[in-house]
Amino acid sequence: MAEKLYGSIEAGGTKFIVAVAGEDDQVTAQERVKTEDPQTTVANCVKFFKQYDLAGLGIGTFGPIDINPNSPTFGYIKKTPKPGWSNFDLQGEFERQLQVPVKMTTDVNASVYGEYIARGRRNDQTLFYVTIGTGIGGGMLQAGKFIGLNNHPELGHMTARKHPDDDYAGGCPFHGDRCFEGLAAGPTLEGRTGIAGEKLPRDHQVFKFIRYYVAQLLFDVYLTTRADVLIVGGSVLNEADMPEVRRDFAELMNGYLDVPDLEQLIVRPAVADNGSATLGDFELAKLAAK
Amino acid sequence: MAEKLYGSIEAGGTKFIVAVAGEDDQVTAQERVKTEDPQTTVANCVKFFKQYDLAGLGIGTFGPIDINPNSPTFGYIKKTPKPGWSNFDLQGEFERQLQVPVKMTTDVNASVYGEYIARGRRNDQTLFYVTIGTGIGGGMLQAGKFIGLNNHPELGHMTARKHPDDDYAGGCPFHGDRCFEGLAAGPTLEGRTGIAGEKLPRDHQVFKFIRYYVAQLLFDVYLTTRADVLIVGGSVLNEADMPEVRRDFAELMNGYLDVPDLEQLIVRPAVADNGSATLGDFELAKLAAK
Repeated sequence: MAEKLYGSIEAGGTKFIVAVAGEDDQVTAQERVKTEDPQTTVANCVKFFKQYDLAGLGIGTFGPIDINPNSPTFGYIKKTPKPGWSNFDLQGEFERQLQVPVKMTTDVNASVYGEYIARGRRNDQTLFYVTIGTGIGGGMLQAGKFIGLNNHPELGHMTARKHPDDDYAGGCPFHGDRCFEGLAAGPTLEGRTGIAGEKLPRDHQVFKFIRYYVAQLLFDVYLTTRADVLIVGGSVLNEADMPEVRRDFAELMNGYLDVPDLEQLIVRPAVADNGSATLGDFELAKLAAK
Repeated sequence: MAEKLYGSIEAGGTKFIVAVAGEDDQVTAQERVKTEDPQTTVANCVKFFKQYDLAGLGIGTFGPIDINPNSPTFGYIKKTPKPGWSNFDLQGEFERQLQVPVKMTTDVNASVYGEYIARGRRNDQTLFYVTIGTGIGGGMLQAGKFIGLNNHPELGHMTARKHPDDDYAGGCPFHGDRCFEGLAAGPTLEGRTGIAGEKLPRDHQVFKFIRYYVAQLLFDVYLTTRADVLIVGGSVLNEADMPEVRRDFAELMNGYLDVPDLEQLIVRPAVADNGSATLGDFELAKLAAK
């Protein structure tokens, strides 16, 4: 019997990354499919996957999506500013066109799931993964189960308290400077400085604000869920930012709780190159195939 | 065979409420035990319970407590300003002195557990219970399991964004005006006005701030956990405050997510007279007895 193959889709606003792996999660084929209208995008993904005899497909996608299994629109993309994508049956289209079992969750849930696998599938822990990129989103896994039963977390839009030196008006179309996404997502770098984020020197003081808001978000989620590991993913911050994030976290705590070693608590992903989601998708594909 | 009896302790900073019920959760005996030093307090509770042939005991207590089953201090009260109570083995003392199986959690976890039972034990829902009293605390139950695996939530100390008209310096010894407890717990009423909270007229503008911060806390926890029911308990707010809490919640959301009927989402407890915790304790007692 040939080895079983599994498919992964990381569905994003600019590209869908499609990949195939065997039982060992090692990627044997991968492609980038440009995000166009939903029909074209799905057709291009299907063309890639039809080259393989898949046993299951896992999708980690941008949101919001309907994850309520009792909902008539389960597996659909919900209201989104992306043209054509609102109310699109993403999971159903792949099920119908590929005729394989599919499991779908958010991109950040897929990432935290991948981290769970990479960190040894510990069911005695709660993991939190936050990505700081074009937007801010997070996923949590307690004892191997996602937090968020009928809807997925939207914690980039949690209320943020402004840094006293930060006079930025904020970039969230819904919340201005009231939420973390409006104050600390990638586009706020250019919003504050007029310079594209990737061109800013890493010692620019604007990163001080980003680190502070990320620490505040981690602090608030920690007090809510008491996660054992807080994983900071995405492209805006990197390993060199973590010491200051930990210091800001400790300042926010101000001795209220005895916290474990912050170097163990606040970390970068265990899977390199933002690959956590792909690993999580393959696991979802295996669950779908069961 | 005689009906089985179960014990409940609501352990608070001023009193321990001890109660006994049968399988039907109807309280057949109840007493208030003054909170003194731990040995005296436990002895007085034990005296009450020794009158009955208990099958199990459930405790909902003030925190912080150690809920990590792998910890050598599992079941202990952790560091607390209450004299004598730090590092006290509360669960162990009752197990040893009563020789019955005991299950213990936080007071707010016991409350959310009681609400879960009163609302039909729905495992397709996530419930959040917050109490606004001397302090602010909350508990969550997703599909019948507590959120918070090795430590319990401490969400009264989450970061709050100040209401633009609120110039109160805050009452939290750790966080000043930076956290919800420092801005909206019962003592902040007197902190702001110089008048004891229970003597303030309900239309005093200070309640506007409390309602706003409660709405903000509910909003932040909703975005994190996507709970299906947000239950506002405690003595500071009442049913008449809920319309404004819902209105502030909707203003914070500002159309970002389509939210279900707010009258179904944001509610007062289903169990009257803050009795949710006792009901939750009896359920813990039954689980302990199994």
